[in-house]
Amino acid sequence: MKYSFSKRVQSVESSVVREILKLTQGKSIISFAGGLPADEWFPVDAMRVAAERVFNQGPQALQYGLTEGVTALRESISQRMAANRNIHADVNEILVTSGSQQALDLYVRALLDPGDVVLVEDPTYLACLQVLGMNEARVIPVESDDFGMLPDDLEQKLKQYNPKFVYVVPTFSNPTGRVWSLERREALLRLCREQETLILEDDPYGDISFTSNKVPTIASLEGKQADRIVAYTSTFSKTVAPGLRTGWVVADKRIINMMAKVKQSSDLHSSVLDQLILVEMLNPAVFNIDDHIHKLAAVYKERMETMAAELKNDLWKNARWNLPQGGMFFWVELPEGLHADSLLKCAVEKGVAFVPGKPFYASEAKRNTLRLNYSFAEPSVIRTGMSRLSEAVSEFTARSSD
Amino acid sequence: MKYSFSKRVQSVESSVVREILKLTQGKSIISFAGGLPADEWFPVDAMRVAAERVFNQGPQALQYGLTEGVTALRESISQRMAANRNIHADVNEILVTSGSQQALDLYVRALLDPGDVVLVEDPTYLACLQVLGMNEARVIPVESDDFGMLPDDLEQKLKQYNPKFVYVVPTFSNPTGRVWSLERREALLRLCREQETLILEDDPYGDISFTSNKVPTIASLEGKQADRIVAYTSTFSKTVAPGLRTGWVVADKRIINMMAKVKQSSDLHSSVLDQLILVEMLNPAVFNIDDHIHKLAAVYKERMETMAAELKNDLWKNARWNLPQGGMFFWVELPEGLHADSLLKCAVEKGVAFVPGKPFYASEAKRNTLRLNYSFAEPSVIRTGMSRLSEAVSEFTARSSD
Repeated sequence: MKYSFSKRVQSVESSVVREILKLTQGKSIISFAGGLPADEWFPVDAMRVAAERVFNQGPQALQYGLTEGVTALRESISQRMAANRNIHADVNEILVTSGSQQALDLYVRALLDPGDVVLVEDPTYLACLQVLGMNEARVIPVESDDFGMLPDDLEQKLKQYNPKFVYVVPTFSNPTGRVWSLERREALLRLCREQETLILEDDPYGDISFTSNKVPTIASLEGKQADRIVAYTSTFSKTVAPGLRTGWVVADKRIINMMAKVKQSSDLHSSVLDQLILVEMLNPAVFNIDDHIHKLAAVYKERMETMAAELKNDLWKNARWNLPQGGMFFWVELPEGLHADSLLKCAVEKGVAFVPGKPFYASEAKRNTLRLNYSFAEPSVIRTGMSRLSEAVSEFTARSSD
Repeated sequence: MKYSFSKRVQSVESSVVREILKLTQGKSIISFAGGLPADEWFPVDAMRVAAERVFNQGPQALQYGLTEGVTALRESISQRMAANRNIHADVNEILVTSGSQQALDLYVRALLDPGDVVLVEDPTYLACLQVLGMNEARVIPVESDDFGMLPDDLEQKLKQYNPKFVYVVPTFSNPTGRVWSLERREALLRLCREQETLILEDDPYGDISFTSNKVPTIASLEGKQADRIVAYTSTFSKTVAPGLRTGWVVADKRIINMMAKVKQSSDLHSSVLDQLILVEMLNPAVFNIDDHIHKLAAVYKERMETMAAELKNDLWKNARWNLPQGGMFFWVELPEGLHADSLLKCAVEKGVAFVPGKPFYASEAKRNTLRLNYSFAEPSVIRTGMSRLSEAVSEFTARSSD
């Protein structure tokens, strides 16, 4: 019997990162492929105390919950957003989601009919491209450089395509590690407000900053006003632990209501236990999350610098790469003509993996690009992995120039 | 600014149960409206021990997880399905979901294109009707009586509409409390196999049985064979706690793979902490879940009998209602002409709530029907609530016959 699946599910490829995982399974591979936080830094002791406090609240706490999320958690998020992001939102403008991945999915399903246009950076977050594909969106890339989308191209495409929304990861972007300049953020906001086009600002990494000069979020630039066009999403996956699977969205109440309607039919609500544990972990009497994030950023900065030192090796002299100011990724451009897919095969033989840049592109890919994650492995492992990778680059370059 | 939402989200009404919650908020109302398990029976002590064991596994446990679910949990589910349900499934035929609500959503999104037909019982589970609406399915009800769908009507509609799948809740159904007879289960399976039409068997309540004679699940009647047409879904929400938000699906591996693809784009994976806690709670050294379910069934049986005794009151003599053999609901038919919506207003004034039958119907509703939940309230509260409801019925009947 041949099962007949929906068009949308057939149109979407399985995640490349998963395919790479398969490729590396059972082998002793150092992986710079995933986007994993450093698990040895997960605050398990605080989580244990938090869980104990939740269980002491009695069984009612574990009953069915509100689709919008546990109210106390939304209150804490509202306070943190105001204090750390200058984003001011009432509790009913906040929806708790199962990670920020679900925020993307609910936002897209609340807004898009098949064929509707979404503008994205190029390259952009690949899992967002998957969500857009799964919902039959028409994805149009906007020309982008190291400072963000180019305003001229953006303006022209806003007018030409009348998109439903513009999706951006403006701070320590995945995959490019890029930080949009203030000017580009303001230009995006101004142009979209003129066209009444919505913006989805995806900010999973904003907390993981290696410098003290922070560029304001686009949501904070817009401020608390009627008819907001910016929806902002973030997550506790990078700052607490992915296993708790909790993210959130801040948006106009009408958008939150529609997303909640989709969420109700999708899963009724997210794990109440995870949400209640996070309420406790945002209580300064239980855990100092800001202090934790500060330490974590220092750990990631050291790892980033370790990898940067390896990239300064002569073998990489013809490659271009960014020096991340935060987040979890290097984005590398090899000399033209060197295909990262082929390099990957060579690298896996040497015992190291990464993600080729191709799946991050909405338009024709630069095949000579790749993404390296530095948050997961300890410095000594990064050095070993990078020496394997440098060896692969060297052999591969020699082979290619034959 | 007018936001422009997707057609699907605009086409679906917000849940009636939620609307009733709003109606009752801030008032001292006894609610038979929800489908809530008895929270004072949630096994919090065992959960506390289980959580402690999870935290002792170290931080890696709380890293990003597999989309398909924690392998150890899928192994335990596989064993339980074999032992308690006579359903034999390998680990890669099992997908862990955020409650069985998500199982419905993923199944529908993996299979249906807009306009595809799904056959349902009438009345049926209202949240499934929401999922079908949200995905623009064409829902066709099959004539049903106390023993399940009528085979003649089913056969005719399978041929006429060539549906993608048939959705059934054959054991202690929501809302009717009905148990399909063995003959009807076999007829459904035979007719659907002839037409190569899939079946989704939703079984959240199968464990909550008041008798020892269990009718086999439709999945067990089909058995472990190639090209299976039955997908089976259940949940830990009724047997452990809804706050852990964990359900599962058993189906052919190809269907599981496609559902996993949708899940990957929806939320990457469900809460790993919840899953790991359940792994521990399915370990007999930590918790005897069968014993717990046995006690829970006894508690619910007492509550069901308490409500049944009240329904035997003279005021209800013109109403028809089932005597549940398990699950969580009474389904009541008032004398024709008495509208449950109007009765609800009168009942809320007296301090008691229920769900009118209307939203459970895919076709024209019997307006004189209503659903009463007996699992949530203790017997003394059930008696108070039912005496208020009987009073409302009495006044309402008098008013209607004026």
